[in-house]
Amino acid sequence: MAAPAFCAAIDWGTTNMRLWLLDGHGGVLAARSSGEGMRACLPDRFEAVMEAHLSALGAAPDLPVVVAGMAGARGAWREAAYRDTPAALDTLHAHAVRVEGAGRDVRILPGVCQREAGREDVMRGEETQLAGAVAQGQRSGLFCMPGTHSKWVRVEDGRLLAFTTFMTGELFALMSEHSILRDMLGQDGGSPHSPDFRAAVEELQADGAGLTGKLFSIRAASLLGRAPADPRARLSGLLVGAEIAAARGMIGDETAVVLVGGGVQGAAYEAALAAAGIACRTMDGESLVRRGLFNAATALWPERRTA
Amino acid sequence: MAAPAFCAAIDWGTTNMRLWLLDGHGGVLAARSSGEGMRACLPDRFEAVMEAHLSALGAAPDLPVVVAGMAGARGAWREAAYRDTPAALDTLHAHAVRVEGAGRDVRILPGVCQREAGREDVMRGEETQLAGAVAQGQRSGLFCMPGTHSKWVRVEDGRLLAFTTFMTGELFALMSEHSILRDMLGQDGGSPHSPDFRAAVEELQADGAGLTGKLFSIRAASLLGRAPADPRARLSGLLVGAEIAAARGMIGDETAVVLVGGGVQGAAYEAALAAAGIACRTMDGESLVRRGLFNAATALWPERRTA
Repeated sequence: MAAPAFCAAIDWGTTNMRLWLLDGHGGVLAARSSGEGMRACLPDRFEAVMEAHLSALGAAPDLPVVVAGMAGARGAWREAAYRDTPAALDTLHAHAVRVEGAGRDVRILPGVCQREAGREDVMRGEETQLAGAVAQGQRSGLFCMPGTHSKWVRVEDGRLLAFTTFMTGELFALMSEHSILRDMLGQDGGSPHSPDFRAAVEELQADGAGLTGKLFSIRAASLLGRAPADPRARLSGLLVGAEIAAARGMIGDETAVVLVGGGVQGAAYEAALAAAGIACRTMDGESLVRRGLFNAATALWPERRTA
Repeated sequence: MAAPAFCAAIDWGTTNMRLWLLDGHGGVLAARSSGEGMRACLPDRFEAVMEAHLSALGAAPDLPVVVAGMAGARGAWREAAYRDTPAALDTLHAHAVRVEGAGRDVRILPGVCQREAGREDVMRGEETQLAGAVAQGQRSGLFCMPGTHSKWVRVEDGRLLAFTTFMTGELFALMSEHSILRDMLGQDGGSPHSPDFRAAVEELQADGAGLTGKLFSIRAASLLGRAPADPRARLSGLLVGAEIAAARGMIGDETAVVLVGGGVQGAAYEAALAAAGIACRTMDGESLVRRGLFNAATALWPERRTA
């Protein structure tokens, strides 16, 4: 390899995992990704999966590894207990859990939880993206983090103060796979550039409470021969629109929301925020988690960096 | 039989059907019900199912039958085209469809549709309950009609002006059977008398837009060891609470909403409306649909009534 690896970094999500070999400046030497997310890994499979990927990249046997995400959930690889809000994002590494018995030095970063009654919430992985944003100078802001379980997060001076998870992506999957709307939705469409997407987002801004009363209109319109051109886009717009309408109250005096984006989902949220009249600037989610992992690694193994 | 039957009346829903033999005053001579709803009946099965029930009750071969509900949907028994809003509820019978080729006189009452763009909606069956309410003197009001697809309906002087369908019941089923909340919900509980139900309804009145941001809290609270005593009641309360928060804007100058209730679901909505501070008076849904069917029959076959 051209440069010696400083560490390996893994973002271990529910359904996917991504692994990078990083140099001493956080640059990517090599990368792997696979569908071996937490759900695909029994507790004793994590190390084997990791070693197979490291071996495929020719990583040294003593290369240390820093991990964020669902690998640290209870019942997963090793539990890394949640940090409570308010949580300092630049010291997550100090609470990393070492995987005892592993063949190399592996540390799993903690997630963050919020215990306020009726607003209980948890995250694993997003806190490391946010730590990456803080490291890049974005020390305050309202972050919108789209996903199966989207999160809106208030960060102030490098501390995670409060957050809310929206089941937007999961609701879309439930509605499109199992609900009475399924037959109306088809397999195609869903473009955030469809006028149906934009119109649905706008409707929900005017009437944010009306989500559950709007969903059935997709079926009714179809029965009346007035189906929208892109029913999937309308469903998606209603759900994302409801999320934005609910999150609107979290916006403070900032001029723009920070959208942690990337890919199709990021584009949909960019379109939705625009339709809702909310300015945003986008940061790339993959770069952020890599930066957060790298920063944790430099704090965990300072002696390696100077080597 | 003690008295001669005037007609048979059927409420043919999606998953169930109920049949009554009625005398000339609308009194019930005999009744049957079964799970042979629209979904269980291919288009050519409706008549056989009806005849089997009529035969079991010893009905005369020339007894006429009036039907409301999903039997009139496109692709079901015979399509009875929707009446548009505003729809006069005491003349639905004039638009009933006769089932040609049936061995007796069978009429299917129409449903009602609303074509306003973005608020498209349809009903089949509820309009006959509302016709029953009108016949009982409740000629105006805001009706709350709980169900898999709950409806809130504005009726004025015997005319159905506008309505909104909420997918509350279906969302509860989707969330409890297929979502990430499933494992947290268990099989038991869900009582509307649980403090968790009441608290959830109240939370949604204060923050009606927050439904999709509240659902995940059930999972998070459980992960944090703070699960509500009755998570099913909390889920139910959040969904019914969101419906009521959205429907609140439909309340006009009436002092009480008319709840078309009956059974467990009616009790849950009574508790939820009370928690939301909305007065209601309850009418029994089964009595109403029977009354609506009977009134249609007296208009369709006036000569039989005097016989």
